[in-house]
Amino acid sequence: MKIACFAGDGIGPEIMAEARRVLAALDLPGLVVFEGDVGGAAYRRHGHPLPEETLDMARAADGVLFGAVGDPACDALERHLRPEQAILGLRSALGLFANLRPATMFAGLESMSALRPEIAAEIDLLIVRELNGDVYFGEKAMRTLDDGRRQGFDFMSYAEDEVRRIAHVAFRAARGRNGRLCSVDKANVLETSQLWRDVVIETHAEYPDVELSHMYVDNAAMQLVKNPGQFDVVVTGNLFGDILSDQASMCVGSIGLLASAALGERQTQFGTFGLYEPIHGSAPDIAGQGEANPMAMILSLAMLLRHSLGREEDAARVERAVSQALADGVRGGDLGGTAGTREIGDAVLARL
Amino acid sequence: MKIACFAGDGIGPEIMAEARRVLAALDLPGLVVFEGDVGGAAYRRHGHPLPEETLDMARAADGVLFGAVGDPACDALERHLRPEQAILGLRSALGLFANLRPATMFAGLESMSALRPEIAAEIDLLIVRELNGDVYFGEKAMRTLDDGRRQGFDFMSYAEDEVRRIAHVAFRAARGRNGRLCSVDKANVLETSQLWRDVVIETHAEYPDVELSHMYVDNAAMQLVKNPGQFDVVVTGNLFGDILSDQASMCVGSIGLLASAALGERQTQFGTFGLYEPIHGSAPDIAGQGEANPMAMILSLAMLLRHSLGREEDAARVERAVSQALADGVRGGDLGGTAGTREIGDAVLARL
Ligand SMILES: CC(C)[C@H](C(=O)O)[C@@H](O)C(=O)O
Ligand SMILES: CC(C)[C@H](C(=O)O)[C@@H](O)C(=O)O
Repeated sequence: MKIACFAGDGIGPEIMAEARRVLAALDLPGLVVFEGDVGGAAYRRHGHPLPEETLDMARAADGVLFGAVGDPACDALERHLRPEQAILGLRSALGLFANLRPATMFAGLESMSALRPEIAAEIDLLIVRELNGDVYFGEKAMRTLDDGRRQGFDFMSYAEDEVRRIAHVAFRAARGRNGRLCSVDKANVLETSQLWRDVVIETHAEYPDVELSHMYVDNAAMQLVKNPGQFDVVVTGNLFGDILSDQASMCVGSIGLLASAALGERQTQFGTFGLYEPIHGSAPDIAGQGEANPMAMILSLAMLLRHSLGREEDAARVERAVSQALADGVRGGDLGGTAGTREIGDAVLARL
Repeated sequence: MKIACFAGDGIGPEIMAEARRVLAALDLPGLVVFEGDVGGAAYRRHGHPLPEETLDMARAADGVLFGAVGDPACDALERHLRPEQAILGLRSALGLFANLRPATMFAGLESMSALRPEIAAEIDLLIVRELNGDVYFGEKAMRTLDDGRRQGFDFMSYAEDEVRRIAHVAFRAARGRNGRLCSVDKANVLETSQLWRDVVIETHAEYPDVELSHMYVDNAAMQLVKNPGQFDVVVTGNLFGDILSDQASMCVGSIGLLASAALGERQTQFGTFGLYEPIHGSAPDIAGQGEANPMAMILSLAMLLRHSLGREEDAARVERAVSQALADGVRGGDLGGTAGTREIGDAVLARL
């Protein structure tokens, strides 16, 4: 089993260290861990946020554990050299098309949400975001018109096979949960959305047991605030998924606890190749101070164990240890508590 | 003074009737009111959701009062014939590029929000949404590739003058409020957003008294839930504005109370030509039952009086009458009350 660990910038290295301690404690047979540079850290060492050797390391692994990228010192760089490009480059080069972002309220943390506790308590949804298409990776251009005006362009596109493969992931996920799938688009305005909707409806024929509904993205943004408990699995494109998944995680209120998976098509010996990262960012303001909550990073490791290594039992064990620590009152600064990075790591380890 | 009234579908005619009663009570000198067909109603009568004569009527007016469009009976029509195309067509044909969507918590209604009351109480923001560009009106295409796969395309574009004119509207609005402007984009991914950000920064030079900040759209969707009170004026593109403004209005909790203006460049004898509509939809489920809350429609009339007719005093008078009715406990079904459409109209008229 090979895991590539890319800690990245800001609090990345600190939280990665705790996930690595948990991983070590599981004592997986024949485990090999590689470490690679990404983000601002990689730019400083290699002149690029995603060096070729990092990419090779990812390709050689069964799964990638990713910390966070983002570094204010790189703000002035051209866009293609900025730290965030590392994650976009990995998604594209590795064909990671399916982003799973579960948002579930943790018992006892309802008061951390900006939503009223009785509304927040109901949140238990999974956002399945397409991650390889849409306006993210289409052609882009800046041109100067004859009269001297600048004009910017971004091409949004979806082909039916791109929609179909993410639809399958979403229908299967719904089958494994409460059997309901809501597809979010803007079919009243966009041609890509019309195709999206048509293909999702076609794919539904193979999953008659799943209840399918459709919602426009503006309405979905409303409903996620008004009544997030209505959603089970939500499937949507890359751009809408970026917005809605961040919104949903804030409804949970505890962004320091939410993990994500980005899965590709490649099957490894043990499962599906994927990249796993906390949904929070690199938090440069608290970097290096041992204050960051490593729980989302540790829960990302659990997702890696489940999806890429086929170790469901170990995954559940890690998740239980985190839940137990929370139930016992262990709280990082993001949850209004005082426990530091290492202390939270210790607390999880003690409950493994 | 000429006002064109397009009541549209669903609850449109009922709520328009109440706004018309309020308008009549103001007894404006030399007022002429036209009535035109839009939406599903227009499709049934003229075969098109936005007939040429409706468009001409709008062009001849100083301002347009718009009810709502949307009709489930039209769901099977091709996209360009569906009721919603009427509003897109009006925005484009009339050059209505500046959408003003205020979201303010009404005193005493904090408990209607899905947000915790102390967070909801702080909401007092204005979203300025660009309404003539972006992926809405760019070229669209559906093509079949050689191998038979379908592919959909939508072209997103912004030219610098399109960004500059909406930036001016937003900076001026910020000047008239609390002097803070937050520009929302996705400049880490989109070329259109990079241009957007550059032009907003350039335009800022003319408004040194306004404090300017920038936020990525995914973060903005989070912040609108976490701490909406931080925003004064938010300026953003057509697509992001569609999503964020609906989200913001749901944070207020009372979508039946929120009005909007869509302004163009044309100056009339009395102000700026514009179209005014409630942000809620046609609510076909309660249409024709006299249950709809007409307050957002009446508040849209107030915006028309202010921006297109130069009648600030009348506008404030109408707004005060609505606030007073709310303060006196008049509540439509959307606010958990029992007052019907007509009864709410009477209550506002009595307080004019
Ligand atoms: C960093 C950025 C390019 C990225 C995205 O937009 O996908 C991030 O917001 C995310 O959701 O992972
Ligand atoms: C009906 C639809 C095309 C429209 C839009 O997307 O602009 C609506 O959602 C709005 O915000 O006015």
